[in-house]
Amino acid sequence: MGNSVGVVKTNYFSFGYHPEEMPLESGIRLGPITIAYETYGTLNPQKSNAILITHALSADAHAAGISAENGETGWWDNMIGPGKAIDTSRYFVICSNVLGGCKGSTGPSSLDIKTGKHYALTFPVITIADMVKAQKHLIEELGIKKLLCVMGGSMGGMQALQWAASFPEMACCVIPIATAVKHSPQQIAFNEVIRQAIMADYNWCGGNYYEGTPPHSGLALARMIGHITFMSEKSMEDKFSRRLKNPGYSFRFTPDFEVEGYLHYRGNNFVKRFDANSYLYITKAMDYFDLSEETHFPPPATGAKVRFLVISFKSDWLYPPHQSQTIVRLLKRKRYDVTYCELCSNYGHDAFLVDINQQAELISHFLSGEFAKCAS
Amino acid sequence: MGNSVGVVKTNYFSFGYHPEEMPLESGIRLGPITIAYETYGTLNPQKSNAILITHALSADAHAAGISAENGETGWWDNMIGPGKAIDTSRYFVICSNVLGGCKGSTGPSSLDIKTGKHYALTFPVITIADMVKAQKHLIEELGIKKLLCVMGGSMGGMQALQWAASFPEMACCVIPIATAVKHSPQQIAFNEVIRQAIMADYNWCGGNYYEGTPPHSGLALARMIGHITFMSEKSMEDKFSRRLKNPGYSFRFTPDFEVEGYLHYRGNNFVKRFDANSYLYITKAMDYFDLSEETHFPPPATGAKVRFLVISFKSDWLYPPHQSQTIVRLLKRKRYDVTYCELCSNYGHDAFLVDINQQAELISHFLSGEFAKCAS
Repeated sequence: MGNSVGVVKTNYFSFGYHPEEMPLESGIRLGPITIAYETYGTLNPQKSNAILITHALSADAHAAGISAENGETGWWDNMIGPGKAIDTSRYFVICSNVLGGCKGSTGPSSLDIKTGKHYALTFPVITIADMVKAQKHLIEELGIKKLLCVMGGSMGGMQALQWAASFPEMACCVIPIATAVKHSPQQIAFNEVIRQAIMADYNWCGGNYYEGTPPHSGLALARMIGHITFMSEKSMEDKFSRRLKNPGYSFRFTPDFEVEGYLHYRGNNFVKRFDANSYLYITKAMDYFDLSEETHFPPPATGAKVRFLVISFKSDWLYPPHQSQTIVRLLKRKRYDVTYCELCSNYGHDAFLVDINQQAELISHFLSGEFAKCAS
Repeated sequence: MGNSVGVVKTNYFSFGYHPEEMPLESGIRLGPITIAYETYGTLNPQKSNAILITHALSADAHAAGISAENGETGWWDNMIGPGKAIDTSRYFVICSNVLGGCKGSTGPSSLDIKTGKHYALTFPVITIADMVKAQKHLIEELGIKKLLCVMGGSMGGMQALQWAASFPEMACCVIPIATAVKHSPQQIAFNEVIRQAIMADYNWCGGNYYEGTPPHSGLALARMIGHITFMSEKSMEDKFSRRLKNPGYSFRFTPDFEVEGYLHYRGNNFVKRFDANSYLYITKAMDYFDLSEETHFPPPATGAKVRFLVISFKSDWLYPPHQSQTIVRLLKRKRYDVTYCELCSNYGHDAFLVDINQQAELISHFLSGEFAKCAS
């Protein structure tokens, strides 16, 4: 499995100072913008070995290694490191926290320099294209003209696809994992009940809770709903079945079953590390994402074409394989070079994070081939 | 499609007056108990043509015809009436509101005669077996020794199965539709987030809201979550796709998509007709239901055996077909006479209510055959 990249520190890059605020898809201009990011490995002299990792809904820049700040292991540490699928002895790996997030990048919990107060809901609604545009500023700051690869799962996959749409000349290859070119009404529906769970919390106060008590119970409930969709019926059965927390039914409205206790545990832990307003902004960005009608996705396959490895998981019912097949279909219509793999896993949507053996092997070999092609 | 049973009135049957309170599965004794019920058609002199319809989570005794009280059409009116699948010109049809409900049967919103106040959370937690036991009192009150059939969908199917477990001598046949012998951890998980949505509402007040403002926003959110699980990915796509309520994205946290508006509409309508505490009690009863380990389900097939028609729907992911197949397997192990049909429908779990053509034909013929066998 290779080794760890070791202890890592998060870096911060700021841009968009007045009058160079970044125009958003909504038409609003936002600035200054700070993007938190980490890097692992070394950029080669040709600057041809850079891989951008794009993260999912609630993750952050800390994708690999041990955080110098809090000792936590990165969220994709099983994939990134020396000798691992994303081999940091060969590649220079970048992961940045998304715009709108709450892990060091500018978002609703940030201070608005114009008012000295937290943005809260005065923060403009952002889109996946806005997240990617901010990432592009970072990549340019790092002196990289063309990325070897952009890859990510779930919302990370949306960003990867958006890179291919917005800046096709800036990536040799793209690996969208367990994702879609647009949310289905079912996916939108889940995000809407998740948002309502947050906004229904008495402590949410129209988003203005930064000086008071945050909407912990609403955010915990939102996350509990989300967790159900991340797992599969089978993985829940394997993990919990109908085991009880205590012998016998309580005949009360406290959690009786282990699965209930687990959801509460995950929900309550989540509120310690995430901002409720960021959850609103990021889920909205996912719902707005729609490359299916874009005349520029995929862009006309002229010049240096982006190559794709599209990965889905059979038991993923939140981003079911047919959504990945749609990505493949759109790409093949314009004669793109696409490899598609539907992997067997019982872990549902979580598979891209937790069931990585097949995925790691695929990505490792794909990257090797791409590196040979692109670096030359 | 046949005709309507016309204007109908709900009846009320009360029993369990002190000292004859009904013992519940929890060991607590409850009384008096009122059960709201409706009947359609005429009981024949042999009393051999009675069919008990058992309802799902949020339904009531008003299964067919036009309510004299509010003009509403019954929830299974497309199935019940003269010339329909459940033919009221041949059969005497009974539908009763479950114990723990809020549509005329005793539940948490009822007045406790001991205190003169609403039970609220002092109402004992009840089970599917308790619901069925109360129904048995009603059936006996109606002078019926043996039902021709007990049938229902979803939680109605659980009650039908429980009849076969608790009182196998009292039903010729049972038709469990879109149901299970036990909730999976995924089903429990959905019910738990639904309960949490209600209990997180500031107005819920530990269940003591009957003198104040009910937890409308929590109950609406609970129902919105439920609605997602009642539909299928395909039926949502067919009904809503990504159509917007208004042209263009709002870039605000109001519903942009029709599917969001629909969920809000259904949620807000639901709070007008249902009690939040009843939702807690009934979902808990469903989670507790587990006939898979019962040595008496199915009961040893001696004497007059109950015959079964088990129906599931391919696109139902809340009660997926493999759960119905488990029912069939348990029954066949004890050599019961079982017919199993997995019907094609895109409507998900809702199919048993809305996509009834194939289901109606199946049930109609099965009932005819059973009536010929049992009435003789």
